Amino acid sequence: MAKITKVSPLAPAAFPELPVIAGASFASAEAGVRYKNRTDVMLALLAPGTAVAGVFTRSATRSAPVLDCQAKIGGDASAGAAILVNSGNSNAFTGHRGQLSVKELTEETARVTGVPVSRVFTASTGVIGEPMPHERIVAKLDELNTAQDPEKIRDAARAIMTTDTFPKGSARTVEIGGKTVSIAGIAKGSGMIAPDMATMLVYIFTDGKVEQARLQTELAAICDKTFNCITVDSDTSTSDSLMLCATGASGVDATDAEAFWEALYEVMLDLAHQVVKDGEGATKFVEIQITGAASDADAKVHGMAIANSPLVKTAIAGQDPNWGRIVMAIGKSGAAAERDRLTIHFGDILVAQHGWVSPDYKEADAAEHMKQQDLLIRVDLGLGTGACTVWTCDLTHGYIDINADYRS
Amino acid sequence: MAKITKVSPLAPAAFPELPVIAGASFASAEAGVRYKNRTDVMLALLAPGTAVAGVFTRSATRSAPVLDCQAKIGGDASAGAAILVNSGNSNAFTGHRGQLSVKELTEETARVTGVPVSRVFTASTGVIGEPMPHERIVAKLDELNTAQDPEKIRDAARAIMTTDTFPKGSARTVEIGGKTVSIAGIAKGSGMIAPDMATMLVYIFTDGKVEQARLQTELAAICDKTFNCITVDSDTSTSDSLMLCATGASGVDATDAEAFWEALYEVMLDLAHQVVKDGEGATKFVEIQITGAASDADAKVHGMAIANSPLVKTAIAGQDPNWGRIVMAIGKSGAAAERDRLTIHFGDILVAQHGWVSPDYKEADAAEHMKQQDLLIRVDLGLGTGACTVWTCDLTHGYIDINADYRS
Repeated sequence: MAKITKVSPLAPAAFPELPVIAGASFASAEAGVRYKNRTDVMLALLAPGTAVAGVFTRSATRSAPVLDCQAKIGGDASAGAAILVNSGNSNAFTGHRGQLSVKELTEETARVTGVPVSRVFTASTGVIGEPMPHERIVAKLDELNTAQDPEKIRDAARAIMTTDTFPKGSARTVEIGGKTVSIAGIAKGSGMIAPDMATMLVYIFTDGKVEQARLQTELAAICDKTFNCITVDSDTSTSDSLMLCATGASGVDATDAEAFWEALYEVMLDLAHQVVKDGEGATKFVEIQITGAASDADAKVHGMAIANSPLVKTAIAGQDPNWGRIVMAIGKSGAAAERDRLTIHFGDILVAQHGWVSPDYKEADAAEHMKQQDLLIRVDLGLGTGACTVWTCDLTHGYIDINADYRS
Repeated sequence: MAKITKVSPLAPAAFPELPVIAGASFASAEAGVRYKNRTDVMLALLAPGTAVAGVFTRSATRSAPVLDCQAKIGGDASAGAAILVNSGNSNAFTGHRGQLSVKELTEETARVTGVPVSRVFTASTGVIGEPMPHERIVAKLDELNTAQDPEKIRDAARAIMTTDTFPKGSARTVEIGGKTVSIAGIAKGSGMIAPDMATMLVYIFTDGKVEQARLQTELAAICDKTFNCITVDSDTSTSDSLMLCATGASGVDATDAEAFWEALYEVMLDLAHQVVKDGEGATKFVEIQITGAASDADAKVHGMAIANSPLVKTAIAGQDPNWGRIVMAIGKSGAAAERDRLTIHFGDILVAQHGWVSPDYKEADAAEHMKQQDLLIRVDLGLGTGACTVWTCDLTHGYIDINADYRS
């Protein structure tokens, strides 16, 4: 693995304070799956009654742990749940032996923790296609079970990192009927990030009470507007997993509390943005707002075409307001566009409209705008009311450095 | 524009000898559209009776010259034809003024050459969205008309280069009924290269005789298996143009001569490969053969997903036999795949089958294979008989260097 010594320039100043979520506890350990001298496995335990929802990669070659989790979502909440996650090896494309590793890990976790195997979820992230040394993780299960602590969520965020340069966490608290409900989430991910999930593992915990089916519906809907609207490099992982655990320990039914779902959206958007801000080699965070498209779906196609274009991303890296490449990306996206109805802004700077550069456009102003760390590109198609916002980062030498030598 | 001082390591040893095509002549000049001290405009003249076929970008934001050419393809061949091409400015996304530039260029070319304006085709390549100084080209038309020479095709290939590091040419001659028919083509292109054409301009000339409708049908079909199967960076230009001019001056009807169409295929494939070999920053030429797919269309989707994956391309740049990323690309492509039916080879090295790495696979062998300049990746889906071969290059620091500062 390439040496990653510098924290992303886009990283938040500090890991946020995450509230304790009653009914959830965490521990992490050094299992030596691949990395040395760092934690690489975390175990979260959820109290009986915890509803668990999940959204996973749509890859046709998804990993054994993902297939196992998908089969288990929607099961009986009465016995609680366990989530075991390791970094260093993704146990993806490991054939029958990969399934045996998942069986071993889930059965041993069930034995040690007392959680039934049908409620033990696992995830693995790291190199694809190499044998999973699951015995190293099994050897740490007693330690992980004994060390459970409701305050150790930050250590869990660290243990699941791969090429991440900073641990990712986010939290919100809301008042519902005079009582406090908390939401705390962690994530990892920095490359192979594209729609339909990403090389991302995201775990969110709340003490709010919501029954499983509703939790699942809302999670999927919010995922479509957050994690499915980010991209680093257009590549999609075989292992993406997003799980939301509602312990209900606050005693507050959050099902119909709009403030709760809004807070969940904010946590998910914050984590999604942090993943982009840790994009491999990223030096710029870019928001792309598409409006006036023929449909929301078309707006997303245009947004992602811009966000994934290597020519757009390298221009951003070079601080070049090369709006011609945005026109190019819209043209190639396949969604409806009419050249002479496009309006393009960089931030508040009107760049182009009516099929050409604006008469008021001054390249020097745009060049100045491009020096900022956070950039906004706005495109109005002039066709309808479809809209979507997506987020990405630039494409730099750092991306090549990290990925041309990931496994050495 | 970034300084490009080194010729691609993948360039052919020399520009090939191109045969004179009776009925076709060429001239180039320094118009100073953008570049200094190099030719940047070429004019080709075709004798009366020349059939002209063309395939163009499918971009929704295609340039004014492309729209003008598309409207003219299929016109009356009796008056011959003229093709005027400049580099330095693409006259794309230049609104109404862009159309006026095309009008000016085609009308002035018609006036100077005597070719009717309905048979004057133009193309422009270079920066998007900047005003086209067409008057600089118009000022050179007399010179270009006077200097016409059947042997100056190589100079024409040089005049249309932008970030290209070498001029691209290819030729074949075939015997039909005891007579010789020749085909000679030139191309430019090195970035923004993706299916549905690319930032590519390709002009092919033959003295064979084929009527226009048939020429058009065959050109489009061969384009689908050659230029539409290459990708450098997944980006698609607003200006792509491929034209084929059959002067018929050999007096040989080539319509039903299989050898003629095979030779045309070879010229087009050779030029397509040269475009990839001049891919911005490329150090490896990669052929990706997909077999066993559910359909040919699925095979192409898988092939392009691998060829366009930044993670696959950076692994190749790093000489890393990271076949896990190939599995990832297949998984995300959206076309049918079953993880446990995949078979993957690097050249003759069996890498993976039955859902996992082959028991005979030795990473050291694969790593040795990856050091070669020309690489072959073979993927069998194990699902059907669909097949497709695509070509791409690696993604290196050179690509970032060139594109993070293209306009400065």
